[in-house]
Amino acid sequence: MQRLLVSTHPLLLPPPLAAFSCRQIRRILPQSRTAKPPSFSVCNCSSNSSTFKVKTSSELRSTKASSSTDSQPDPKLTALRRLFSNPGIAIDAYIIPSHDAHQSEFIAECYMRRAYISGFTGSAGTAVVTKDKAALWTDGRYFLQAEKQLTSSWILMRAGNPGVPTTSQWLNDVLPPGGRVGIDPQFLFTSDAAEELKQVISYNNHELVYLYNSNLVDEIWKDNRPQPPNKPVRVHDLKYAGLDVSSKLSNLRTELAGAGSSAIVISMLDEIAWLLNLRGSDIPHSPVVYAYLIVEIDGAKLFIDDSKVTEEVSDHLKKAGVELRPYSSIISEIESLAAQGAALWLDTSSVNAAIVNAYKAACDRYGQNHEKKHKTRTQGFDGSNEQLDGPTTLHKCSPVSLAKAIKNEQELEGMKSCHLRDAAAICQFWDWLETEISNNRTLTEVDVSDKLLQFRSKQAGFLDTSFDTISGSGPNGAIIHYRPEPESCSIVDANKLFLLDSGAQYVDGTTDITRTVHFGEPTSRERECFTRVLQGHIALDQLVFPENTPGFVMDAFARSSLWKVGLDYRHGTGHGVGAALNVHEGPQSISYRYGNLTPLVNGMIVSNEPGYYEDHAFGIRIENLLYVRSAETPNRFGGIEYLGFEKLTYVPIQIKLLDLSLLSAAEIDWLNNYHSQVWEKVSRLLDGSARQWLWDNTRPIMQ
Amino acid sequence: MQRLLVSTHPLLLPPPLAAFSCRQIRRILPQSRTAKPPSFSVCNCSSNSSTFKVKTSSELRSTKASSSTDSQPDPKLTALRRLFSNPGIAIDAYIIPSHDAHQSEFIAECYMRRAYISGFTGSAGTAVVTKDKAALWTDGRYFLQAEKQLTSSWILMRAGNPGVPTTSQWLNDVLPPGGRVGIDPQFLFTSDAAEELKQVISYNNHELVYLYNSNLVDEIWKDNRPQPPNKPVRVHDLKYAGLDVSSKLSNLRTELAGAGSSAIVISMLDEIAWLLNLRGSDIPHSPVVYAYLIVEIDGAKLFIDDSKVTEEVSDHLKKAGVELRPYSSIISEIESLAAQGAALWLDTSSVNAAIVNAYKAACDRYGQNHEKKHKTRTQGFDGSNEQLDGPTTLHKCSPVSLAKAIKNEQELEGMKSCHLRDAAAICQFWDWLETEISNNRTLTEVDVSDKLLQFRSKQAGFLDTSFDTISGSGPNGAIIHYRPEPESCSIVDANKLFLLDSGAQYVDGTTDITRTVHFGEPTSRERECFTRVLQGHIALDQLVFPENTPGFVMDAFARSSLWKVGLDYRHGTGHGVGAALNVHEGPQSISYRYGNLTPLVNGMIVSNEPGYYEDHAFGIRIENLLYVRSAETPNRFGGIEYLGFEKLTYVPIQIKLLDLSLLSAAEIDWLNNYHSQVWEKVSRLLDGSARQWLWDNTRPIMQ
Repeated sequence: MQRLLVSTHPLLLPPPLAAFSCRQIRRILPQSRTAKPPSFSVCNCSSNSSTFKVKTSSELRSTKASSSTDSQPDPKLTALRRLFSNPGIAIDAYIIPSHDAHQSEFIAECYMRRAYISGFTGSAGTAVVTKDKAALWTDGRYFLQAEKQLTSSWILMRAGNPGVPTTSQWLNDVLPPGGRVGIDPQFLFTSDAAEELKQVISYNNHELVYLYNSNLVDEIWKDNRPQPPNKPVRVHDLKYAGLDVSSKLSNLRTELAGAGSSAIVISMLDEIAWLLNLRGSDIPHSPVVYAYLIVEIDGAKLFIDDSKVTEEVSDHLKKAGVELRPYSSIISEIESLAAQGAALWLDTSSVNAAIVNAYKAACDRYGQNHEKKHKTRTQGFDGSNEQLDGPTTLHKCSPVSLAKAIKNEQELEGMKSCHLRDAAAICQFWDWLETEISNNRTLTEVDVSDKLLQFRSKQAGFLDTSFDTISGSGPNGAIIHYRPEPESCSIVDANKLFLLDSGAQYVDGTTDITRTVHFGEPTSRERECFTRVLQGHIALDQLVFPENTPGFVMDAFARSSLWKVGLDYRHGTGHGVGAALNVHEGPQSISYRYGNLTPLVNGMIVSNEPGYYEDHAFGIRIENLLYVRSAETPNRFGGIEYLGFEKLTYVPIQIKLLDLSLLSAAEIDWLNNYHSQVWEKVSRLLDGSARQWLWDNTRPIMQ
Repeated sequence: MQRLLVSTHPLLLPPPLAAFSCRQIRRILPQSRTAKPPSFSVCNCSSNSSTFKVKTSSELRSTKASSSTDSQPDPKLTALRRLFSNPGIAIDAYIIPSHDAHQSEFIAECYMRRAYISGFTGSAGTAVVTKDKAALWTDGRYFLQAEKQLTSSWILMRAGNPGVPTTSQWLNDVLPPGGRVGIDPQFLFTSDAAEELKQVISYNNHELVYLYNSNLVDEIWKDNRPQPPNKPVRVHDLKYAGLDVSSKLSNLRTELAGAGSSAIVISMLDEIAWLLNLRGSDIPHSPVVYAYLIVEIDGAKLFIDDSKVTEEVSDHLKKAGVELRPYSSIISEIESLAAQGAALWLDTSSVNAAIVNAYKAACDRYGQNHEKKHKTRTQGFDGSNEQLDGPTTLHKCSPVSLAKAIKNEQELEGMKSCHLRDAAAICQFWDWLETEISNNRTLTEVDVSDKLLQFRSKQAGFLDTSFDTISGSGPNGAIIHYRPEPESCSIVDANKLFLLDSGAQYVDGTTDITRTVHFGEPTSRERECFTRVLQGHIALDQLVFPENTPGFVMDAFARSSLWKVGLDYRHGTGHGVGAALNVHEGPQSISYRYGNLTPLVNGMIVSNEPGYYEDHAFGIRIENLLYVRSAETPNRFGGIEYLGFEKLTYVPIQIKLLDLSLLSAAEIDWLNNYHSQVWEKVSRLLDGSARQWLWDNTRPIMQ
């Protein structure tokens, strides 16, 4: 599944490279990857309508000003704006990002404030509401979806397109100087994002107002708001985790000591789940639980709603010396740590502003009492191991992020095993679908997606999908993160390309695969595009590279064949994948966003998913998961290791869609070799017609 | 010719990416490109000896401390150290970089202070002398040369290798806290480099001491010091320049006005030569003249030794409104500009510290008189056009650098034309050399290089070589910037690989070409390595990429075939080349140094020169010059242009060195097509045996 690896607040000016934090608040979108027209537009389509018109920038100029008066006032916006003038609030604008308090990509429904207020349900986006305007920023994956879902009260901002302002530029533009811009620092903003926003809008004398005591969307979201999740947590078996909690905590403590810190606050839910070998069900697709974790040199505290903690989990945690605390007591614990003079490691790119501010304020109070000043260090230039004196914040990436990304042997085993079971389910599904289509059965994109879930759910260890299945026929395939809805989705058209991007959570691993197929006779245009996407896929798959090479160095290899004829795609090429955890994880990525210098390391997992999308026509994506391993080269120039990829995904790629005249002998060899491995690994999990389907679809191409 | 694109003071800590200025003082050398052993060593070889031994780090540990006492004291070092304790100096260390006052790569002999003091004649390096130690930093291109040339009084620091300190780290290491580190700010340090050095050594309480009134090497360099150059300047004909001086100045003034500056100081000699359509002979290989230029909104002043200015040049400059001033009056002019309240655009990454400090000091005096404070702006975030109030420094890349890099039609025409004449000379040379070798003639690397010069100098418009010819037989080919010396060079061995990297300055353009050949029977190892280097060369040559793509994105394509078997090379892949100007120019490059975000733009020239070097065995490099042009793709996804390369260099590549089994059909097509173009373009400039040689060496490979 394609994603922006970095979770996004498209709030700020394009930063200098150094401003990149490990979590990378913002994206760099080189203009080279962005379309010129249209740059931004007002949507005049009703929500979920399948017909819509894209307005160009020039059309827009005449309609923009009148957009919010032409149409019916939006009752949610009206209610929200009413709160702006409340005493103690008094703001001119309010920002509503997508995230929960933990910067999760997928979030529990009850926290989907941005989707509630705007109607746009894509996973990435930021809404900004002023007294007379409302605008929504999202990225290239979601332009078409946002056009469909936003009402005419909203201006769609195509983030990254030339001429499209960032949210802070826009605020500077539309607010009269001296405006007050409200945010919820407790649970919607990282500390870094809040600090940078504050600085940028200060250029126009606007003030950033932290509204500590109320989230304004919560104030108006009273009816039909879902309850917070409360399902029990489970222990992630050691045979899948590979390393027990005590060892993981001990490794982390070594890092803390090395950095001179006495404690670390972890707020990313997948980091907590990984570190404590726990899995939860609070969020669809992500087997995590809402919690915070503080690890000290001599202890650890998990902040969690105790109704979710079974006796087994409680024992498991106790064994590793982890105490339980109520979820809501995190702030007071932070304050108490400051009062004890703890030197805290805070990854301010992931920890929210409320926690960071609480710590700073408490440290300042501590400082006044002890005549010591609170200090802030970024990663020390000299790597010194000094014991920090008094409360000191170390702003540094959470070391758990990297430890989690480098899979151990058992984690890799689980990933390999679940990928084969997943492949078996997918082969059964394709066999079924091709038969149905050839029998002229009418099936919607949702029917198909439901059937895939049926096949998957029969596999051992299946738990959940790892994201909403993207099942897109014809033009819907061009909507990079299309999510078909029962009431509005299309019929799977036998004469158009069909793109299916899906994944599953198993007890032992996480999958993510995209295949694009045609049930009839593809056009030569479709075949050329598909072949070029496959050439990119093969080029990346085959790459060998020296250790310490960042992922962005590899990105262009996946695009080169498309570039040759002036084609490209507006998303990165690869993201990290968790082992029985989040389908998207960092810190590595393979992307044209050159800010992420994380090298690909032996044991990391990445997706390989180049694509091509022709708006309103078709979409193509071919995605396998890969893991990084030693390439065992005959030479080791520079005395270092050279690395390469090994595939996790074994599912046929449709031969019918190839233009063989474009493929080199080596590329045909790659494909034949891949299909031979697919047969070898997956056929034993299949029988009947699915096995025959696999046989038919893994036959070598004769050159 | 391979180079580090960025001129280098390897003085400082690896910077965060944002610290990169347009001139990029320092290099990022990812560890992945660097060898582990040996990391640094003491040379115990006499200067220019052709036998030497590399000491490993572990051997070094035992010899390092005693190195300077074991051997004869170096009389130059002794004389230099004597000055350390002079009243008014009182320093503990002195830094001697390679550059002249203009950050030139090649410099007039009289300014080669670092080579004089250390004996190491490579183009890049920094010497640091303390009261009891002397160390020289250079990069991977020069490790072997430095090992040969340094005496045992010197420690060789292999910059970028793991564990090798930067000069400032080393100073922090070896000096007792509170040391005084002297530099010559007038003519050896850019402002940025001096400021950063000051900051880093301050961590150990060392003080950076600006020795304004004397360069310590000049003090001891009395005998046999060459005179400063004083040859006349000439006008670069408009038919080659393509744009007259008034138009260039007018474009520059538009940029000044747009940035709110009233004047710019230009100190890069090639920028001055380009802007004023002048060429000089002050520096070997670079057709430039020692000068400074100040361009104001309503005037321009050239600071130059007036003995170099002919009447023709004087008229040419007068016509464009450029006044003449003595070279030495630059500082007083800067002070006078400050007193007039000028808002100065200073590229502090290229302008020396003396100028910047003089301006700041004068501005402060002006401020005191006018009760206004001097301000410094870096590039404004909002691109505003405010008129700056009072003296203000704008720290921003010189806009001349980019304007010069993007060649106009006439410049490209000149480059194309001189490359064909150059190719003719090179074909005559190869024909001659192959005949001589087959007749068992004994020729040294210098003989061969001299003969090449003879052939070239017969070509119309020939002026000079564009750098010292690298003529390396067998193991000498592995010394990336080898310069054969008559008294020590090798015989060209008929049974070894021979690498020849050379170039010329013509009246209409500049060339730079490398070919590697074998006169006998290459080994299979040599053929495999050569073929992989050629595959990298072809991959880069064929690349199509979207506009706004930085050069580093392309670098890995040139390495990928080597990486597959664990090989690599320790230099960048491409540098810019001036049009009848410096053979190395920025701001673009194609390199694994990811800090240079300059996109490749239509009209830019780059070299394409992957290589492979097996220490003490052989070197391989295949270099053509390319220019960037529209790729005229059938699609233009994103509404942007896709770019590709066109070759400037047309000289055969030796077929004998290929392992055809490694080449794809497309690669063989590329080679056949290239050779067919070589024949078509160059044969009409040849006759006799050279024409026959060209015919023989451009025959297609049958597949």
